[in-house]
Amino acid sequence: MPLAPHPDRLLPADLGVRTIARRLYQSVAGLPLISPHGHVDPTLLAQDRPFPDPATLLVTPDHYVTRLLHAHGVPLERLGVRRRDSFADAAESAELAEPRAVWRTFCAHWSLFLGTASRQWLEAQLHDVLEVRVQPSAATADELFDELTRRLAEPRFRPRALYRAFGIAVLATTDDPADDLRHHRALAADPSWDGQVLPMFRPDVYLDATAPGWPTALDRLAEAAGVETGDYSGLVAALEARRVYFRQHGATATDHSAPDAGMEFLDAGEASRLFHRVRSNHRTGCVDYQDARRLSRQLLGEMARMSAEDGLVMALHTGVRRNHHLGTFRRFGPDTGHDIPLRAEFAEALRPMLERFGTVSAFRTVLFTLDETVFSRELAPLAGFYPSVYLGAPWWFLDAPRAMRRFRDAVTETAGFHRCAGFVDDTRAFCSIPARHDTARRVDAGYLAELVAEHVMDESDAASVLRDLHDRLPRTAFRLRDQATNAADPPGARAAKGHYECADLA
Amino acid sequence: MPLAPHPDRLLPADLGVRTIARRLYQSVAGLPLISPHGHVDPTLLAQDRPFPDPATLLVTPDHYVTRLLHAHGVPLERLGVRRRDSFADAAESAELAEPRAVWRTFCAHWSLFLGTASRQWLEAQLHDVLEVRVQPSAATADELFDELTRRLAEPRFRPRALYRAFGIAVLATTDDPADDLRHHRALAADPSWDGQVLPMFRPDVYLDATAPGWPTALDRLAEAAGVETGDYSGLVAALEARRVYFRQHGATATDHSAPDAGMEFLDAGEASRLFHRVRSNHRTGCVDYQDARRLSRQLLGEMARMSAEDGLVMALHTGVRRNHHLGTFRRFGPDTGHDIPLRAEFAEALRPMLERFGTVSAFRTVLFTLDETVFSRELAPLAGFYPSVYLGAPWWFLDAPRAMRRFRDAVTETAGFHRCAGFVDDTRAFCSIPARHDTARRVDAGYLAELVAEHVMDESDAASVLRDLHDRLPRTAFRLRDQATNAADPPGARAAKGHYECADLA
Amino acid sequence: MPLAPHPDRLLPADLGVRTIARRLYQSVAGLPLISPHGHVDPTLLAQDRPFPDPATLLVTPDHYVTRLLHAHGVPLERLGVRRRDSFADAAESAELAEPRAVWRTFCAHWSLFLGTASRQWLEAQLHDVLEVRVQPSAATADELFDELTRRLAEPRFRPRALYRAFGIAVLATTDDPADDLRHHRALAADPSWDGQVLPMFRPDVYLDATAPGWPTALDRLAEAAGVETGDYSGLVAALEARRVYFRQHGATATDHSAPDAGMEFLDAGEASRLFHRVRSNHRTGCVDYQDARRLSRQLLGEMARMSAEDGLVMALHTGVRRNHHLGTFRRFGPDTGHDIPLRAEFAEALRPMLERFGTVSAFRTVLFTLDETVFSRELAPLAGFYPSVYLGAPWWFLDAPRAMRRFRDAVTETAGFHRCAGFVDDTRAFCSIPARHDTARRVDAGYLAELVAEHVMDESDAASVLRDLHDRLPRTAFRLRDQATNAADPPGARAAKGHYECADLA
Repeated sequence: MPLAPHPDRLLPADLGVRTIARRLYQSVAGLPLISPHGHVDPTLLAQDRPFPDPATLLVTPDHYVTRLLHAHGVPLERLGVRRRDSFADAAESAELAEPRAVWRTFCAHWSLFLGTASRQWLEAQLHDVLEVRVQPSAATADELFDELTRRLAEPRFRPRALYRAFGIAVLATTDDPADDLRHHRALAADPSWDGQVLPMFRPDVYLDATAPGWPTALDRLAEAAGVETGDYSGLVAALEARRVYFRQHGATATDHSAPDAGMEFLDAGEASRLFHRVRSNHRTGCVDYQDARRLSRQLLGEMARMSAEDGLVMALHTGVRRNHHLGTFRRFGPDTGHDIPLRAEFAEALRPMLERFGTVSAFRTVLFTLDETVFSRELAPLAGFYPSVYLGAPWWFLDAPRAMRRFRDAVTETAGFHRCAGFVDDTRAFCSIPARHDTARRVDAGYLAELVAEHVMDESDAASVLRDLHDRLPRTAFRLRDQATNAADPPGARAAKGHYECADLA
Repeated sequence: MPLAPHPDRLLPADLGVRTIARRLYQSVAGLPLISPHGHVDPTLLAQDRPFPDPATLLVTPDHYVTRLLHAHGVPLERLGVRRRDSFADAAESAELAEPRAVWRTFCAHWSLFLGTASRQWLEAQLHDVLEVRVQPSAATADELFDELTRRLAEPRFRPRALYRAFGIAVLATTDDPADDLRHHRALAADPSWDGQVLPMFRPDVYLDATAPGWPTALDRLAEAAGVETGDYSGLVAALEARRVYFRQHGATATDHSAPDAGMEFLDAGEASRLFHRVRSNHRTGCVDYQDARRLSRQLLGEMARMSAEDGLVMALHTGVRRNHHLGTFRRFGPDTGHDIPLRAEFAEALRPMLERFGTVSAFRTVLFTLDETVFSRELAPLAGFYPSVYLGAPWWFLDAPRAMRRFRDAVTETAGFHRCAGFVDDTRAFCSIPARHDTARRVDAGYLAELVAEHVMDESDAASVLRDLHDRLPRTAFRLRDQATNAADPPGARAAKGHYECADLA
Repeated sequence: MPLAPHPDRLLPADLGVRTIARRLYQSVAGLPLISPHGHVDPTLLAQDRPFPDPATLLVTPDHYVTRLLHAHGVPLERLGVRRRDSFADAAESAELAEPRAVWRTFCAHWSLFLGTASRQWLEAQLHDVLEVRVQPSAATADELFDELTRRLAEPRFRPRALYRAFGIAVLATTDDPADDLRHHRALAADPSWDGQVLPMFRPDVYLDATAPGWPTALDRLAEAAGVETGDYSGLVAALEARRVYFRQHGATATDHSAPDAGMEFLDAGEASRLFHRVRSNHRTGCVDYQDARRLSRQLLGEMARMSAEDGLVMALHTGVRRNHHLGTFRRFGPDTGHDIPLRAEFAEALRPMLERFGTVSAFRTVLFTLDETVFSRELAPLAGFYPSVYLGAPWWFLDAPRAMRRFRDAVTETAGFHRCAGFVDDTRAFCSIPARHDTARRVDAGYLAELVAEHVMDESDAASVLRDLHDRLPRTAFRLRDQATNAADPPGARAAKGHYECADLA
């Protein structure tokens, strides 16, 4: 069976609409890729080592893929996922599959991915990036493994060559505030490298006071910042210092994952007492969860306050129960396919933040959710009033064609297109970046084509909206400098102007 | 660029379906407009003064429009919205924009409305009502402002002339129970006026015991009703008296906005003690929120009880956080674009009311929500069993083509079409009334055409359903007298029949 | 007006897509019906008595139908529903309608069902099963009643003849654990009967410790099991004994209705104390609701534990407020059309169960919900990781064409097609079984045809998925033996293998 993704794939079935969609899609298909948020490891580009084999590239590290194979009865070890528990060594020698075996398992289960977003991305990666022309199957697995392993060793399949071939204009990574950003510095200093790889400030581990590892994390942060984190003001100062460092190295945004979007804005004294109480409790090993969550919310509030001062865009990803299956977490660690979305609430949770900073011009936040119900109910109305609020793209489980259409349907009539941050790929799978952007462009082209066909807007307006969604809006929302023109919206530039002042909430 | 809304706009893209939809739409396009609930000011029609200019007509008072411009960084003062705080005078002299400047700002941002419901309504108003033939833009703003200001001065653009031109059969306003309804009386007494403008009883301010202004409101009510409101039974009697007054002046319905749909049915003694406690607390300025909400729920329950006796239809609009941004509320007051929907729950909240009155034939309630999740989960199942429950049209943020389709999709398979109250425009923007009804007729025609094309029903049934949705059902659900025939369903007429008696809940 | 359901009904309107859909549909239209869960009374087939008349067959027992007629003002007595309260005798003599009158009422209201799922099923039953060729109406009611009453007396319309004509391969009933399964045994022992009618273990009444009748139920169970149920371990042993009995008579699954999906896993001592406290409280008539719910959750947890041992598939139906209108419940009893869905939550609620049994290979659960919001947010992600979790078909109010499409849209991109349990009719209306399966096959064919037209998959893959959904997946998910081959997945067969062991949760 040949592997041949159709040129019209994901465009609307109706032939009249498709004709319009095709024209719209063609007008943006070749645009450079803007990736203001994702999880690609900067080492990849800094070191530019070849990918070893297709299983290690496409299967083992992709929890979208391992998750569904696991659901069909394949233990994670058989997919090359390493155990991290105390029995890891003994167990692995017996159970951990070799890349070729992993690839065979994946190919044999290829049909189970029918209809999933992963299948689209995998087909596009195999066909468009890796030049595969046959469907994976038990019969073709070995041949494909050999062919791909050979191909990946070629220079044109190294990360930097792919970065250029993909047409990436800018790629943001996600980085620990204590990171010295050596890989970003190395890339910036390399005269042979003309790409743009920016860090993003992701302080979760320092903000999550409920985690057993929190005190150790604070020590690490203190060392990186050169500021003691033994009291609340020290912790705040250390975070501020690291934000300065990140901004100096090109960061334009911060990223936050939290169980919910709640924030506290306690006065200095109360925050300080709360910090000491939680810190002491960590020493005795007896942490009150409510107290610790409250401190985490307070620290997230500090992040918002800092963003309102330094202009770093605050990306908020909330509403996931991480590591749902304790047994799997204990064996294999986090990010192994069992993070499960929870019901979300933003309208009340964000009120304290938006009352303070919602109309401050330096402040900007991009909101992401896994609970579709908040798209029309809360997020579009919020983004339709607050100049600081941008709608994040459908994310994770929702980063798929039908879900993207539901998102557009849910938010557009209330907030229009221009309160959206455009597409964000949010991926750690480097080779899937073009496929993900391509999917989004096709779906948006199809959505707009339908509006054109329904005479809601004319085609030139639709083309303009589509270009904005995939070029101007992600740049604007994430305050990316335009390398070509060196113009537009640098971080903090508008901080002094102050649309309204911060409301007096005394 | 010409402004020329397409005759087939909002009809389905598929040409076969569109052909059916076009026939269906044509069969209802010219029907009189039934507007059983909205917020048009009766002064408008009583005084019949010309509208001054397009900004004052279309931009400044429309929080759908100002909201989205605000989200794109335009302060409300620049849209002509007057400040209401203590610095208003000083501030306004400096900041409040003149109508021409407001209009320029609006025209320059015209493209930001692409894809929104407002854009549809504005295009239709500009083209169909105001005879504009060019797209608003920075280039055309001044010319349009002058042209429209001249045109609005013509007699045929005065409110009464427009009322007739729009083909409005009946228009309900929303009125304070203490209102003497002088404008309604003036209209009724005017031999040159043949329209039908009915009051609607909206007692929120007397029911919301959490508001600081509640005691003052009770005094105002007492004066209007000629009944002391210093104790619970007095307040109840005053409300009953005003309902009689409103019914005498043509009201067929009451309207209620509440944070949630909960009601209490306390016995007389308990209600009385609760009233005195809350009223005393207001005197000391120290109101217990839970107590006051409980009293509000009790008073809403009294409204349901009264509806079960006098037959006024109870329209319930719940689930909004009003005035989300405190700073904007303090400057500009309420209804300025930052009311944000909240998660809603009806099944449990309405149980006490429906156990008492759900099968009482005089009782009728029309339910509105901004949380789409309850359409299929709760509202359609409730309306599919209780003869007193009608499904309100998609409202506010959901009063838009795609949201309307989602509503039909969500409720029809469970409740059919005939448990819906038909279209309700719910608007304060008088000139948008025909556009809103037209949008609803187009969307319903398209929805039904799709069912015809899928052979779910035949076209004659679809035509009959469509006519019911836009003619019979709003009349029936809101118990409007048919002026032509003077027949059908006057308020309270069926109160004596009693389908079932009120269930004994002892 | 003729009654002539169109051969292409429910297939997509777009002619290109429809052509594909028609081919796909034809490929499964004739497949045998797999009904692993429903509420047909086994007496029906065991006794094989003729149905008396169309009202008694199609109207009175179908709460989908009586519900909507009630909403349009028809009292349940007029639909032949018998009162169960203390005034029943007196009332019935006055009010209970005769079948012919019931049928007249139903026919006169025929148009109110337009657009509902019931209308589709009724049209198909009338036309395809009962050979009716005119639309029901006030004018045709009597003629139809006579014609159908005559026809139902013919041998070919008896239940067993219809079972064969419908092409049912296997039909599961829903049975009380104390039931002696005499009808199932009679059928199995009857040499003239070649159908397959399996029992399903439905222990709600023994698990719901909040119900006044719980202690009496335990006594009944004790008698059936021959095990004392006076203490916790006795109750558990009795349930285990009955599961063995049910498995011996062909059961492959258990069915559970609960207000929510929560479970407890208390240690033996605590469970025992809780049991005694709740049981004592029942004696004094003063049951603490929280305590009793906790015991119910504990007993549901025991069911999960037993499933992980004996391999009976656990079907979970949660999130309904049963008997919403107390007055109707008191008169007419349960299942009379006013069960109203509630907001659901699965991710947190199922965690204790899935941590224990989620990766145990003997364990399997099929999850059903009436709250669509959990499809994409929780159920697809859970089924996309846990090998034990299958997605149940859209159920009850959601068992309708548009709702089915929304379900596919919501879950497929995350979980693919093969984590679904396929179609489950879940009906007590025997004659509607073919219509329900046919509807599901049409909708799935249309859904897949759209994916083919959008080049998401090719037609041969789509045909294979469609066949799986309506043949292999319901067999697999519910562990049905394949009678033809006698192969495949008998209950408990895989229990010994243990994919992972139960996680240590100490």
